[in-house]
Amino acid sequence: MLRRAIDLFNTKGYDATSIGDLAKELGLTKSAIYHHVASKEALLSAALDEALDGLTTAVRTATSAAPGTSALQRLRTATEESVQILLDHLPAVTLLLRVRGNSAVELEALTRRRLIGDELATLVRAAVDEGSLRADIPPEVISRLLFGTVNSLVEWYRPGGPVDPTLLARWVTGVVFDGLGRPDGPATVGGT
Amino acid sequence: MLRRAIDLFNTKGYDATSIGDLAKELGLTKSAIYHHVASKEALLSAALDEALDGLTTAVRTATSAAPGTSALQRLRTATEESVQILLDHLPAVTLLLRVRGNSAVELEALTRRRLIGDELATLVRAAVDEGSLRADIPPEVISRLLFGTVNSLVEWYRPGGPVDPTLLARWVTGVVFDGLGRPDGPATVGGT
Repeated sequence: MLRRAIDLFNTKGYDATSIGDLAKELGLTKSAIYHHVASKEALLSAALDEALDGLTTAVRTATSAAPGTSALQRLRTATEESVQILLDHLPAVTLLLRVRGNSAVELEALTRRRLIGDELATLVRAAVDEGSLRADIPPEVISRLLFGTVNSLVEWYRPGGPVDPTLLARWVTGVVFDGLGRPDGPATVGGT
Repeated sequence: MLRRAIDLFNTKGYDATSIGDLAKELGLTKSAIYHHVASKEALLSAALDEALDGLTTAVRTATSAAPGTSALQRLRTATEESVQILLDHLPAVTLLLRVRGNSAVELEALTRRRLIGDELATLVRAAVDEGSLRADIPPEVISRLLFGTVNSLVEWYRPGGPVDPTLLARWVTGVVFDGLGRPDGPATVGGT
């Protein structure tokens, strides 16, 4: 039921979806739905928790890496694990990325999302300080570009399509950190 | 008036915005608005043309570079010019990226957007064939990641903020093609 509710929220918009719509979609009565869930907001909350719990674990996995692991390596791990969560929980993460803070549940989700963003931004700064990320771009812009690239996957990735999620997580991480240029190709340093 | 209409469409949603809303926003009567524009759809059409004309010119500038210019250099130019257009025409491009094809005007905009995407995808394939882009990722995925990174700027960039648009266009291009790693930093090739 959560799965179908998330899909409906993503297609129709959360605000525009009623429990009646969900009942119709599932071929159930409204009272049958209320037998299982307290409210539409409880469904939203469960959906956002699914996304946030996954992303929190992804970042924790990276930040709690063995002592001696470089900030760059932690950040690469956090990126790859986050992409994997995004692809594995695509509908829930899509919903999370659309949340604008219109209710207590949404505001709480935005707070949790910001905390995850802060942890990643801290990793970015540590990697810049360590000298392993380019120093010609402000760390805040690096964070924005990194999150932007990762989050843009929800715009086109479709589960069950031709692109394997584990490979894609590796490719995205490779492109973000090493660039689109061939590692052994002609030098592409410099602007246009 | 077009500027205010675009802002209203972006804030409130195009479908939810009426000419009456626009009149109120501008402190005009509806008939005063209709004196200047034929319909709400004419405003949408003008807004989408602003974005599409800019992006088309950006890609044309790159594809019509002097003979002997490498595909990689054309693609870098197309990327940098597209980012510049996106930042300079942020409200119009934001509106374009939200178009879903709900009317003839929207469908025509999607067709023009797809043509631009096809030209860029052709450049990507040429750069892969030329050997200057990494060959371990399918060209279609490279195109998606490239567009995704560029388009994600509408999520956070704010005109008049601390980030200079011309610098940002150069940074985005640099990150996409050369990666976040320091050109002279420790090797970061390989996964987590």
